[in-house]
Amino acid sequence: MRFVYSETQLRHRPPTFLVRGRPQPSPEKPERATALLDALKRRGCAVEAPPDLGAGPRAAVHSADYLRFLKTAYERWSALPDAAEVIIPNVHRSTDMAEYPTGIVGQAGWHMADTACPIGEGTWEAVCAGADTAAHAAQLVARGEVPAAYALCRPPGHHASRDMAGGFCYLNNAAVAAQAMLPILAGQGRAPRVAILDVDVHHGNGTQAIFYERDDVLFASIHGDPNNFYPWFAGYAHERGKGRGLGCNLNIPLPVGGTTEAMFLDAVGQAMAYVRAWGPEALVLSLGFDTYAGDPLAAFQVTTPGFATLGAAIAAGGWPTVLVQEGGYDCAALTANLTSFLEGFSAA
Amino acid sequence: MRFVYSETQLRHRPPTFLVRGRPQPSPEKPERATALLDALKRRGCAVEAPPDLGAGPRAAVHSADYLRFLKTAYERWSALPDAAEVIIPNVHRSTDMAEYPTGIVGQAGWHMADTACPIGEGTWEAVCAGADTAAHAAQLVARGEVPAAYALCRPPGHHASRDMAGGFCYLNNAAVAAQAMLPILAGQGRAPRVAILDVDVHHGNGTQAIFYERDDVLFASIHGDPNNFYPWFAGYAHERGKGRGLGCNLNIPLPVGGTTEAMFLDAVGQAMAYVRAWGPEALVLSLGFDTYAGDPLAAFQVTTPGFATLGAAIAAGGWPTVLVQEGGYDCAALTANLTSFLEGFSAA
Repeated sequence: MRFVYSETQLRHRPPTFLVRGRPQPSPEKPERATALLDALKRRGCAVEAPPDLGAGPRAAVHSADYLRFLKTAYERWSALPDAAEVIIPNVHRSTDMAEYPTGIVGQAGWHMADTACPIGEGTWEAVCAGADTAAHAAQLVARGEVPAAYALCRPPGHHASRDMAGGFCYLNNAAVAAQAMLPILAGQGRAPRVAILDVDVHHGNGTQAIFYERDDVLFASIHGDPNNFYPWFAGYAHERGKGRGLGCNLNIPLPVGGTTEAMFLDAVGQAMAYVRAWGPEALVLSLGFDTYAGDPLAAFQVTTPGFATLGAAIAAGGWPTVLVQEGGYDCAALTANLTSFLEGFSAA
Repeated sequence: MRFVYSETQLRHRPPTFLVRGRPQPSPEKPERATALLDALKRRGCAVEAPPDLGAGPRAAVHSADYLRFLKTAYERWSALPDAAEVIIPNVHRSTDMAEYPTGIVGQAGWHMADTACPIGEGTWEAVCAGADTAAHAAQLVARGEVPAAYALCRPPGHHASRDMAGGFCYLNNAAVAAQAMLPILAGQGRAPRVAILDVDVHHGNGTQAIFYERDDVLFASIHGDPNNFYPWFAGYAHERGKGRGLGCNLNIPLPVGGTTEAMFLDAVGQAMAYVRAWGPEALVLSLGFDTYAGDPLAAFQVTTPGFATLGAAIAAGGWPTVLVQEGGYDCAALTANLTSFLEGFSAA
């Protein structure tokens, strides 16, 4: 197993985000990455930095407009009079009419789904390093250099869609990883079919949207019922994909506040069976630790030993596997939870 | 001419709204209504309160989901822990996937297009009174009781679409007025055709969206170029209506910062010619005074005497006319600007 991490990701340091109308300190802080890195160091893992893979991996998933916006937004925003120190959108495109504006305030509304994805000075460099982290891990696995790799990505990625940031996410690292594997698999004469299993407590709405009409990437997600939980507008059980992608999308929403570890692990089993029946050549795991009982969100009751069980269940699939880090906001427990997951995964 | 106003509208008192990432004092304050009322009092106008017209007029324009949300939102939001004193959305539905959630935070994102439409304790009562103000004025005119009526509506309405608040607006008073006239005209054996001319400095994106695919209500708007000006995503010249409504929508965007009074009045002439060629039975004017040179927005350079010229140009159309108040944020000048408009309108 190989472990990939770029410390450039620490340059994204959002001070606050807006929740229920008030600015709050952001739980998606650089210390998350160092807590996860601690787990790797304590296990004696060799941690490698990804090479600069250029625009290719991110451009394979995100639109040119969006990447141009992310790259230039902070400088353009900072030139506005009375602008806050980070970009928080104050307008949003509606579903009924939508022209792409040239101004930065309008573009911020266009490309930012909510107020939980502030863009600051180091955001662009950090999220590019995160996408490279995921893409490099995916290339290692797809090329067969190693059966599994862990991409320590931070900020997370699974709420970012083709042209929108949202929910702490900017570039969709899991989607970048899956997309990066497809041509390598095809070049080996194997079917370019990759499954993404998302076990973060939130629905991976960005990943779902990116692959919703495709049949080469299956997306399965276990998450808190969006009826009264982020991301609210997607993640319902009846969303099964569209067109060629019909049947390549599986959502298992579970009760927020009432989901035990056993219920969560049972859902993982259902999702793994669905993936197995579809038959991927490789797996990307969107790995969140915000299902943890001690997480500030307190939505699910997964324990630290429960993550070892999760790790073993994933490894039992037997596919070449890329582990992509998503959420998890109890910094004090992240080290132990990642350690537990890796122990379970490696022992299987 | 009759003058309609409800002081219940003063109950909407948003303390702040979020702009460029920072909470700012809202320029859309109750004092706007009292400044406009001063103009009527000084002219010796008899000002009448509208009757309670019930749910009918607003339900003819807005969705049941949206009206239920507006009515119940403040109470439900206030029950959340750590909620701000007014509802400011922190999430938004995207164009690619959208299920209607049951929770208040998700519904707030669904029904609020931006952070400039905070909902507070008296908002619902105030905006219902505003819609009644517009509907009553419209009924007086459509029934032929008077050739023209002025509806002193505040907050404004033209950014509110069928199921979304936005840009200080909640219920679309101009749309309510136009819609209220249609059955009355039909009942008189006249063609149910009403034109809405919007001379507020912002594009009336809500009004446009409501009537975009209809051919019984024409919408024409003169406004700052949305490329770098609210509402950003609509108001472009190529938006001409759709389906049956093709050709029943006219947008004349003008340069923000570079539009003189002459340019504005020339555009009014063009729009009036377009309306005349279409042949309405009645006119609704969305009347904003934020085109004023002294307005905090400083987008256009219309002078106080210029509003008399505008009033005369509108009156020269000769149609039964409902004047519906929209924006205008220089409170000190609102009295003089409305006075000037009414003088020009009445003298024509």
